[in-house]
Amino acid sequence: MNAAPLTDLSRLCVHTVTTRPWSLEESSEQFARAGVKGITVWRDALAGRDPAQAGQRIRDLGLSIVSLCRGGFFAAATADGRRKAIDENRRAIAEAAALGAPLIVLVCGAVAAQPLAESRKQIAEGIAALLPDCASTGIRLAIEPLHPMYADDRSAVNTLRQANDMVESLRSAHVGVAADVYHLWWDSELEAEIARSGRLGALFAYHVCDWRTPTTDLLNDRGLMGEGCIPLRTIRAWVEAAGFRGYNEVEVFSSRLWATNQSDYLRDITAAYLGHT
Amino acid sequence: MNAAPLTDLSRLCVHTVTTRPWSLEESSEQFARAGVKGITVWRDALAGRDPAQAGQRIRDLGLSIVSLCRGGFFAAATADGRRKAIDENRRAIAEAAALGAPLIVLVCGAVAAQPLAESRKQIAEGIAALLPDCASTGIRLAIEPLHPMYADDRSAVNTLRQANDMVESLRSAHVGVAADVYHLWWDSELEAEIARSGRLGALFAYHVCDWRTPTTDLLNDRGLMGEGCIPLRTIRAWVEAAGFRGYNEVEVFSSRLWATNQSDYLRDITAAYLGHT
Repeated sequence: MNAAPLTDLSRLCVHTVTTRPWSLEESSEQFARAGVKGITVWRDALAGRDPAQAGQRIRDLGLSIVSLCRGGFFAAATADGRRKAIDENRRAIAEAAALGAPLIVLVCGAVAAQPLAESRKQIAEGIAALLPDCASTGIRLAIEPLHPMYADDRSAVNTLRQANDMVESLRSAHVGVAADVYHLWWDSELEAEIARSGRLGALFAYHVCDWRTPTTDLLNDRGLMGEGCIPLRTIRAWVEAAGFRGYNEVEVFSSRLWATNQSDYLRDITAAYLGHT
Repeated sequence: MNAAPLTDLSRLCVHTVTTRPWSLEESSEQFARAGVKGITVWRDALAGRDPAQAGQRIRDLGLSIVSLCRGGFFAAATADGRRKAIDENRRAIAEAAALGAPLIVLVCGAVAAQPLAESRKQIAEGIAALLPDCASTGIRLAIEPLHPMYADDRSAVNTLRQANDMVESLRSAHVGVAADVYHLWWDSELEAEIARSGRLGALFAYHVCDWRTPTTDLLNDRGLMGEGCIPLRTIRAWVEAAGFRGYNEVEVFSSRLWATNQSDYLRDITAAYLGHT
């Protein structure tokens, strides 16, 4: 049932937000030195840089750019708000193309004051509006279902089933899903829906971290792999059985871990990757 | 789509935990004085009292005892732990019978160190072990699915679909569900599963509160109805369409609201019940 332990770092990707105190330059240098092979670049880390130059610099270090994080937030109370969101996503697509990131992860958005069904409709419309940009640049979009505790104002897409449904309805080879264990681990339909993502050719990204007990903050108290209760090797087995051969991306938001020495922490990340992922 | 506003308090029940600073005696007196018609008694509020006398005292005030909160926590890492949990639930059933509460709400339990599927199996076995006690006392049990953010150590039952599945598999008129909007509002299958609970004759209880944005604590930052984003009248319409005619139970855990004057707060509760529920 469980996947075999990972024995090398060849499929390890780390998100810049995981070591948030570091700049993009320091993250990429430290990642490369530690043997990490992939990097997912957050847009805040890229701010103020020329994306093409930043991308070249990262590749020169021997790192693959796995994705740009993040687009989305399509749901908005006004038509003007929704247009602005689409424009912002167009800029993200241009940025990804310049950076050399093949994929953008979408946090789809939600508006507390409107029904979730309405937000989901707006999300699907927003993604559909971007498909020409995807076609012209080759950039793909990954719908990331977020944990139901974020349904109020971050994402109206809260299960992999919903994300798969949206992928099916959009019918584009440029649109798939990002499966993040933090958001999905609790779902008894997860194995079946991961398999479905695979059948759809839509399993674009796989994110790992852990769920701590107790969790003291809804946003920034994620655990490093092995610190919590998520059955990481069981879920990785499902993902690999669905045909996924991409990077295992370490995405940890943690005030606790951001406050530690980030070089020591990066060593812990590689150890947790081999020991628990 | 929405239910008509409630125009009187005849179906209003308040949980003792909602006004936690008050004793059971003060809660029941204040509730009765405010025109509340039902009370759900938490076991911690009952501690140290004779349940039969407490029940009589509550009924003498004109209140209906809607349920005893809470049993459950069947999942445990050891067989001894699971036996102890069943024994504790037997005591809860005896307590409910003495109190005169027809129903016990079950928070089913979870163990971070074991797979959710294993916890769910233990939960079903635990409930099954109690069915003779239910038959002899007439006490019913309501499986309350808890929000997925509690899947680590509070409940491995996280959707109404899972609760309905468990009700179907247990095949007992004594076992149903408690639908709490706080746990379930995000689920796109909620309308269908509420209807299914109704068809099963299993919709035993309905709990209301609201989801605040931002939510600052995973446990004790619930909102009063109207303070958040839950579509309360939409969900009540589904519940009533499923045949539910019981109490609308106000169950709010809030450090913020517990810190306020509870008499003023109780006035706010009745106003929020009529204005937003």
